[in-house]
Amino acid sequence: MDIKEYVTIRSKLVNEKLEELFPKSGPGIPILRESMYYSLVAGGKRLRPVLCILGYELSGGQNIDEVMPQACALEMIHTFTLIHDDLPAMDDDDFRRGKPSNHKVYGEAAAILAGDALFVEAVGIFLQGVIPDELKVRMLEVLVNALGVDGVIGGQVLDIRAEGRVHTRNLVESIHLRKTARFIEASLVIGAIGARAAESTIEKLKTIGIDLGVLFQIIDDILDETGEERELGKKLKKDHEGGKCTYPKVMGLDNSIKEAKKLTEKVKIEAKAAFGEKGALLEELAEYFLNRRN
Amino acid sequence: MDIKEYVTIRSKLVNEKLEELFPKSGPGIPILRESMYYSLVAGGKRLRPVLCILGYELSGGQNIDEVMPQACALEMIHTFTLIHDDLPAMDDDDFRRGKPSNHKVYGEAAAILAGDALFVEAVGIFLQGVIPDELKVRMLEVLVNALGVDGVIGGQVLDIRAEGRVHTRNLVESIHLRKTARFIEASLVIGAIGARAAESTIEKLKTIGIDLGVLFQIIDDILDETGEERELGKKLKKDHEGGKCTYPKVMGLDNSIKEAKKLTEKVKIEAKAAFGEKGALLEELAEYFLNRRN
Repeated sequence: MDIKEYVTIRSKLVNEKLEELFPKSGPGIPILRESMYYSLVAGGKRLRPVLCILGYELSGGQNIDEVMPQACALEMIHTFTLIHDDLPAMDDDDFRRGKPSNHKVYGEAAAILAGDALFVEAVGIFLQGVIPDELKVRMLEVLVNALGVDGVIGGQVLDIRAEGRVHTRNLVESIHLRKTARFIEASLVIGAIGARAAESTIEKLKTIGIDLGVLFQIIDDILDETGEERELGKKLKKDHEGGKCTYPKVMGLDNSIKEAKKLTEKVKIEAKAAFGEKGALLEELAEYFLNRRN
Repeated sequence: MDIKEYVTIRSKLVNEKLEELFPKSGPGIPILRESMYYSLVAGGKRLRPVLCILGYELSGGQNIDEVMPQACALEMIHTFTLIHDDLPAMDDDDFRRGKPSNHKVYGEAAAILAGDALFVEAVGIFLQGVIPDELKVRMLEVLVNALGVDGVIGGQVLDIRAEGRVHTRNLVESIHLRKTARFIEASLVIGAIGARAAESTIEKLKTIGIDLGVLFQIIDDILDETGEERELGKKLKKDHEGGKCTYPKVMGLDNSIKEAKKLTEKVKIEAKAAFGEKGALLEELAEYFLNRRN
């Protein structure tokens, strides 16, 4: 199975499980559920859940049902961060994944609350399933470390504050690490913990996860400058013109592409060293990130 | 020890532990931490942590250090909900606990993110301490049920949508239950689980918790109409004039006071039946809620 097939098949399983764990109709205030569901099923590559499953399988896990609740929770949390990022007070994006942003459909107050509730319900779903409680606690610790004051939310604070300030390589790397890379790293590691991976395996996945995450974000920045709006489903050049601190702005477009290629090679070497033949999926994933158009 | 002394002593312990678990300086992006800390130490009665400790002690718990991380996490989560409730897109409150609201000091984007990060870091702190992992998981499940689509956040959605609509007793009870009562209930129950309480004890605390929570919120609504701004540290009559669905508006002020007194008596009977002499603190707590001025 190549990585494209792997992502297609695994993300289909994730979508089915999400539908089961968080259906449109269910307990709670219907309009709140609806607004959460709207953003949750708006598309997206289900990258974090797929990485969680991949981390599990690379670590020897034999039954991916074991980590499906945790994988799905990661997507819910990613969706929460996107809803809040798009708010008028933040990046003020009217489109996301080719559809109107949550606050354009439901209003600003509802969008803030939909994001909040997605995180809350994600924690509930994260605690479900057959994984022993001591592993769930450890996996959840990894997750909150990747999200909090020194993770995704900390990175978003840096990102917003960077507008209109001096942009340096140091700053853009600091933002990328927190806003994207640590969550990608955590997704792989959470799956690995679910498969009772050895500490040495987890350490290797951490390095690979950070490199993959930075690579992913550099390409994101490049696509903001060179991509097709139709393919990406959001307004482009907004980061560049909006004063965001992006990789191409600090390093130039050519150097950004060079850096992305360098990271791709680095991941391939790391994956081979860590997992041998089995690491091929990670090697292909790096290539897939490098060449993606959306 | 009477309830006033109990609240004073236990809330002091909570403040000390919060300072230890989430100091102003620590890991993460400094300005984000600072904005979280600003709202966390802005005062407040530390009611939810104290109720958690009380639930623990009433259930026979002998060492309150066991549940201090979870108690502190409850206050962080309460603070998160207050920061988001005060946002311009929500209730648009400029003051909270006598100080400018978070977004008045740090801006709207930072306030949204401070709320988000308080919740994330609270989950991390909730997982700390010596309580066995299987109990932590159960306690956290209780918490997310009290917060999510059918809890505090669901209640806030109802609350916001009620503005400008027909207000009924049914609606105000539905809002109070979710916005306030279920979190008060969860605080008692989380402490009880930490003390390995019998299921029968937990069931009794659930009933008492809901009644206490509804009582607390009815008094809150009454104070909005009759209280002193200086004592309450926030703008009053805002709920009434702002089109909120409140108890006095639906039932009238006299009937609201009657209902609060009825609930107080109900809690006293329930507390005595459940805990005998030991239940005196809960009885006094109901009286304390009934007579509070802030």
